[in-house]
Amino acid sequence: MNDEELKNIVTDLSFWDKLSSREKELFKNNVQKVKYAKGENLHSADNECLGLLLVLTGELRVYILSEDGREVTLYRLSDGDACILSASCILHNITFDVFIDAQSDTEVLLLNISAFSQLTQGNVYVENFALKNTVDRFSDVMWAIEQILFTSFDKRLATFLLDESSKNKSPDIKLTHDQIAKYMGSAREVVSRMLKNFETLGIVNLSRGLIHIVDKDELKKMLKKL
Amino acid sequence: MNDEELKNIVTDLSFWDKLSSREKELFKNNVQKVKYAKGENLHSADNECLGLLLVLTGELRVYILSEDGREVTLYRLSDGDACILSASCILHNITFDVFIDAQSDTEVLLLNISAFSQLTQGNVYVENFALKNTVDRFSDVMWAIEQILFTSFDKRLATFLLDESSKNKSPDIKLTHDQIAKYMGSAREVVSRMLKNFETLGIVNLSRGLIHIVDKDELKKMLKKL
Repeated sequence: MNDEELKNIVTDLSFWDKLSSREKELFKNNVQKVKYAKGENLHSADNECLGLLLVLTGELRVYILSEDGREVTLYRLSDGDACILSASCILHNITFDVFIDAQSDTEVLLLNISAFSQLTQGNVYVENFALKNTVDRFSDVMWAIEQILFTSFDKRLATFLLDESSKNKSPDIKLTHDQIAKYMGSAREVVSRMLKNFETLGIVNLSRGLIHIVDKDELKKMLKKL
Repeated sequence: MNDEELKNIVTDLSFWDKLSSREKELFKNNVQKVKYAKGENLHSADNECLGLLLVLTGELRVYILSEDGREVTLYRLSDGDACILSASCILHNITFDVFIDAQSDTEVLLLNISAFSQLTQGNVYVENFALKNTVDRFSDVMWAIEQILFTSFDKRLATFLLDESSKNKSPDIKLTHDQIAKYMGSAREVVSRMLKNFETLGIVNLSRGLIHIVDKDELKKMLKKL
């Protein structure tokens, strides 16, 4: 990684200007670019602690897993986001475990755990950066949890389809029911049943691995229902 | 509040020794004891932001509320705990709202929001204290959420332990957490965490390769919980 590239990245880091020159050197000497293939698992309770990740391109998905294998997505991280839970072993206030997967081909800047640990312990501004980022994710998790606990599933699915469609700028959503279930922390059967229901209502057309939104307005109306 | 009383309380605060004398004065001049009756609501989205609460006696319960009035308890705070979400308005990383009720007659030390805000902005160690406390609560919330989403693992484990104990006619279960996980189709981490939780509740004693059931009745009661 050349100096110019690094400069662009570190300007996003609130603690950069609070680092001593020695600390800046430590940072520079311990970052590397790492690529993860779509679907690859980066972090779980059984893996070693990676370090601080800064997402350059692609997307990471952070989720929890029930004992019977149900996934509940907590949040996603994309370009410019920092991932702290991949370094949770050095934050003693974090006592839970998450899984982190590459949702698409993803490139990150990785500051290894030893250097990140030294910086966090030696510089309160780095520690506060890590903590603030974690509190941001706490807010994301609360949002996800409220969606799961309190929103009826038709609304949640409508929101999901509209979000995906607007993200991809297309009425076609190329995801299987199983994938959607994983993103939504639900079960495939529940997703399939509700999509079938949407199809009967003339809101979507279903084909293998593809959901085509026919009536976007009807989908939006659904969000306003009590 | 006399100086002696205050001294006892502030020794629990990690930032106290990092305050300047001016900041210590600001703190002292802006704290007061406040009493809340059992059932009283201290904080909600509609209330003004109170400030930093330090629980002296009693218990606070922090929960979220669905539109249809369902309550989901996130965590409880008791003697010696600090409550930060009652000052969430000054923490820009917190974007969700909670309710805080006194679960029993409760006395707190309240540092008003204006003073807490000044200290948090002016002193990185006070900010660090607030952030760490919030991340602790994030961990509590994750625990609560896993209990809610992945229901009844506690019941399943209670059933397993009772079955094993009656099969062997002994309160001692000579199995590793890994073995139990395999028998239950779960993961070792999940079993270990729940057993640790049972131990904290005084239901079992754990030692290497051995689980001793201390309170069988409590284990049976668990099966009847909703």
